[in-house]
Amino acid sequence: MANSASGDSMTERIVRVLDTFTAERTVQTTSEIGRRAGLPSSSAHRIVDELVASGLLERDEDRRISLGLRLWELALRGSNALRLRQAALPHMATVQSDVREHTQLAVLEQDEALFLERLSHPDAGANITRIAGRLPLHASSSGLVLLAFAPHELRERVLAAPLAPLASGTITDAAALRRELGHIRTQGWVVAPGSVESVSTGVAVPVRDRGRVAAALSVVLPREADPMGPLAALRAAASAIESDLRADRR
Amino acid sequence: MANSASGDSMTERIVRVLDTFTAERTVQTTSEIGRRAGLPSSSAHRIVDELVASGLLERDEDRRISLGLRLWELALRGSNALRLRQAALPHMATVQSDVREHTQLAVLEQDEALFLERLSHPDAGANITRIAGRLPLHASSSGLVLLAFAPHELRERVLAAPLAPLASGTITDAAALRRELGHIRTQGWVVAPGSVESVSTGVAVPVRDRGRVAAALSVVLPREADPMGPLAALRAAASAIESDLRADRR
Repeated sequence: MANSASGDSMTERIVRVLDTFTAERTVQTTSEIGRRAGLPSSSAHRIVDELVASGLLERDEDRRISLGLRLWELALRGSNALRLRQAALPHMATVQSDVREHTQLAVLEQDEALFLERLSHPDAGANITRIAGRLPLHASSSGLVLLAFAPHELRERVLAAPLAPLASGTITDAAALRRELGHIRTQGWVVAPGSVESVSTGVAVPVRDRGRVAAALSVVLPREADPMGPLAALRAAASAIESDLRADRR
Repeated sequence: MANSASGDSMTERIVRVLDTFTAERTVQTTSEIGRRAGLPSSSAHRIVDELVASGLLERDEDRRISLGLRLWELALRGSNALRLRQAALPHMATVQSDVREHTQLAVLEQDEALFLERLSHPDAGANITRIAGRLPLHASSSGLVLLAFAPHELRERVLAAPLAPLASGTITDAAALRRELGHIRTQGWVVAPGSVESVSTGVAVPVRDRGRVAAALSVVLPREADPMGPLAALRAAASAIESDLRADRR
């Protein structure tokens, strides 16, 4: 019942339809959605109609389709990520008003760093991350912190795979990366110059919840900036977030 | 193919499954999900399995189910709401550091005020709204602003329906509500004491995008507080958000 002739489940087809929307492509026609999702035109029209009827997609007066607020509402209302993000947000605001650069919260998701939240100062410099965006674990300060404290198996899997450079400072040698991850576990923070973009330095610290590292809190600084003040602000914020998460569980 | 024996589409069933998760109920067994979604056990197990395979749901080591980060990622990445919320957030932070009470952003969704964002000060008072939570249009300062500037048809529909009280200050008389909405359109703001909770006063202003009111920006104050300072902070923030939204479109 739930399977198409080609054997993929209806759920997979719905995910493929939702997956055609990106930060740069928030409005599409049904035909474009079908083509990008690799669905026959009749299937695409039927699925889009159903998703519009349920509110997961919205159709405007020009019959163009965008993601519905209902999807956002369902995704956030019962989300564990929201608890972490709500605990972190006031302390991220403190870091941001102090450091006046991009302040970010990332979690480990499918072998990448997924950014749950980002506060930007209007005058802050370049930064390619965005909310619900991802970066490789070995090539971002947040990713390095998450990788350093990740399960052994995941860490070895990343170390065994090719380490593609994003910028001049990305660590691409497995032995050097292994040493860096050891340092991060010992000192509890990382300063990663030119890891994602050559003009920027990422500074990240772990945030612990229920005895394990649940997230990485980071700032992105201009390459020439002194990272020590921002690092102190991040460590104070991480400690305050951890304390609020403990209080929240009681 | 996509329809069950009972005639509801697979999409509707998936929405019903996702809809069983709430802020108070973030983890459930598959049996609980099936019961709450009104699905036969075999259907519930199959749909949950498919949703876990696609990452929209996650299963922990005790086989309990929660919403997946993938759902959150899909919902946010291509969302129009995210654009509004990202433009608003830095200015909400300014209001919040100034007023030091709950600061909120709400939009009109299915005849209710849906809260897209909320910043809370640790020392702030009671507030029953939460992110992705909803309040009635006639019984919250955000809702009153959204209703005042809503399409005529929607406004008349709300005025014709019973106006249930949430607290001692909720306007429950249609003629009084119609007068209040007129005032809000003229003055461009509302101060609503005891509308949601008797101990609190909501203060809200409209935020315009592309020539129409797209959102309401609000703070929740203790009932005895003077609303005039917070109102000035809200008006300045709304104006700054509108300016950033204009710049973002260029």
